[in-house]
Amino acid sequence: MANYLPIIILVEPQLAENVGMAARAMMNCGLPDMRLVRPREDHVGAKAIAASSNAEEILCQATLFETVEDAVADLNFVVATTARHRDQTKPVLSAEFAALKMNELCKNKQKCGILFGPERTGLTNHDVCLADAIINIPLNPKHCSLNLSQAVLLVGYEIFKTQVQQQNEELITNHSTITTRNKVIRFCEYIEEKMADCGNFKTEERRDKLVTNLRNIFMRNQLTEQELNTLYGVINHLIRR
Amino acid sequence: MANYLPIIILVEPQLAENVGMAARAMMNCGLPDMRLVRPREDHVGAKAIAASSNAEEILCQATLFETVEDAVADLNFVVATTARHRDQTKPVLSAEFAALKMNELCKNKQKCGILFGPERTGLTNHDVCLADAIINIPLNPKHCSLNLSQAVLLVGYEIFKTQVQQQNEELITNHSTITTRNKVIRFCEYIEEKMADCGNFKTEERRDKLVTNLRNIFMRNQLTEQELNTLYGVINHLIRR
Repeated sequence: MANYLPIIILVEPQLAENVGMAARAMMNCGLPDMRLVRPREDHVGAKAIAASSNAEEILCQATLFETVEDAVADLNFVVATTARHRDQTKPVLSAEFAALKMNELCKNKQKCGILFGPERTGLTNHDVCLADAIINIPLNPKHCSLNLSQAVLLVGYEIFKTQVQQQNEELITNHSTITTRNKVIRFCEYIEEKMADCGNFKTEERRDKLVTNLRNIFMRNQLTEQELNTLYGVINHLIRR
Repeated sequence: MANYLPIIILVEPQLAENVGMAARAMMNCGLPDMRLVRPREDHVGAKAIAASSNAEEILCQATLFETVEDAVADLNFVVATTARHRDQTKPVLSAEFAALKMNELCKNKQKCGILFGPERTGLTNHDVCLADAIINIPLNPKHCSLNLSQAVLLVGYEIFKTQVQQQNEELITNHSTITTRNKVIRFCEYIEEKMADCGNFKTEERRDKLVTNLRNIFMRNQLTEQELNTLYGVINHLIRR
């Protein structure tokens, strides 16, 4: 049985382009299931398909509903996206926490859905009261109006992030391994030696300082074997000249 | 002196709409500074302004550069956004970690910039080699091509998140306070009492079970004073009838 994933529910979307772009954002975030409540324009027409940029299959497989009640009927957990504070007593979840929560629920085979309102007006109070919670997307409070597809993207991005183990930092290399400390030390010594050959050190103190600086420079940037060879090449070229 | 914030640098953007939408995304994320390297279309023309949706001031204050070298000349830390792996030895940072890192650098008055390439081709190797690191936005590897403004939005969103302390979950209420446990217990007892009045309990065991269930139902959802009054009203209405 396939993994459960949160379902994106667009309530009365006005523009076919926005539905298409929302499908593209869903594809970016690995979310295949779209539900549409009374879309104003054709969601499988040329405009929507063009805007979806290769996410046509999401549009073609989208299911249509007459009411929001019908669209959430089989779901176990529903969140509503809304920028405005509502006159309702309702938990407000950060987008990140909502994503974690839905991820856990989906693992336990609970069906989750996220409601997005029409472009101009957003979700009505009637729509919001069908949800377990409201998602709050942290954005500049003075300028938090988002395009529909961008709201889908941000929520989808948080959901995708809960599903991947990502490294904070990794080094990509050109198929060459990172050198050992030993090789970097030897390279620094090689420079020192060549500079001494040229009689460049006026005082021993000055030499010590240079040695420290050189080591700090080259130790810091995780040189690859290949890069170290390049640097040897540069030094040798300079000496010959 | 104003706070330092990462600068968004668009390299040879092709469409004015995308520059405008990128400005809108920047405004959403509280990032005011845009730099443009040889934009193909007018970045303060009607198309860009319309797409910016009230972020006109970002477009008007954007600075223009002839080369990427010029655009990054005064910066202390530069990251490049690129979906493709490059044939260069370069640290790859998750968007979240890059945001944290830039936030720390900005606090220490270091100028940071983020490079975004042209819509069709992305950044060249020449552009990427001017950066300290590459940002990797975690997305569906089979479908990770993003619209320019959406890439700006996701990176900007991570930057904004580092600057706000957000609660995972909070309850918004309609200006009414959450009831104390005591009041919920008394309400449950009230229902039990009224049901007993109607002679509804066949066995004591059955009554105990109902008491437990009722308490579980009403303890779980953080009722406000107002909601509790509503529920008392419903019960009293039903009794009268």
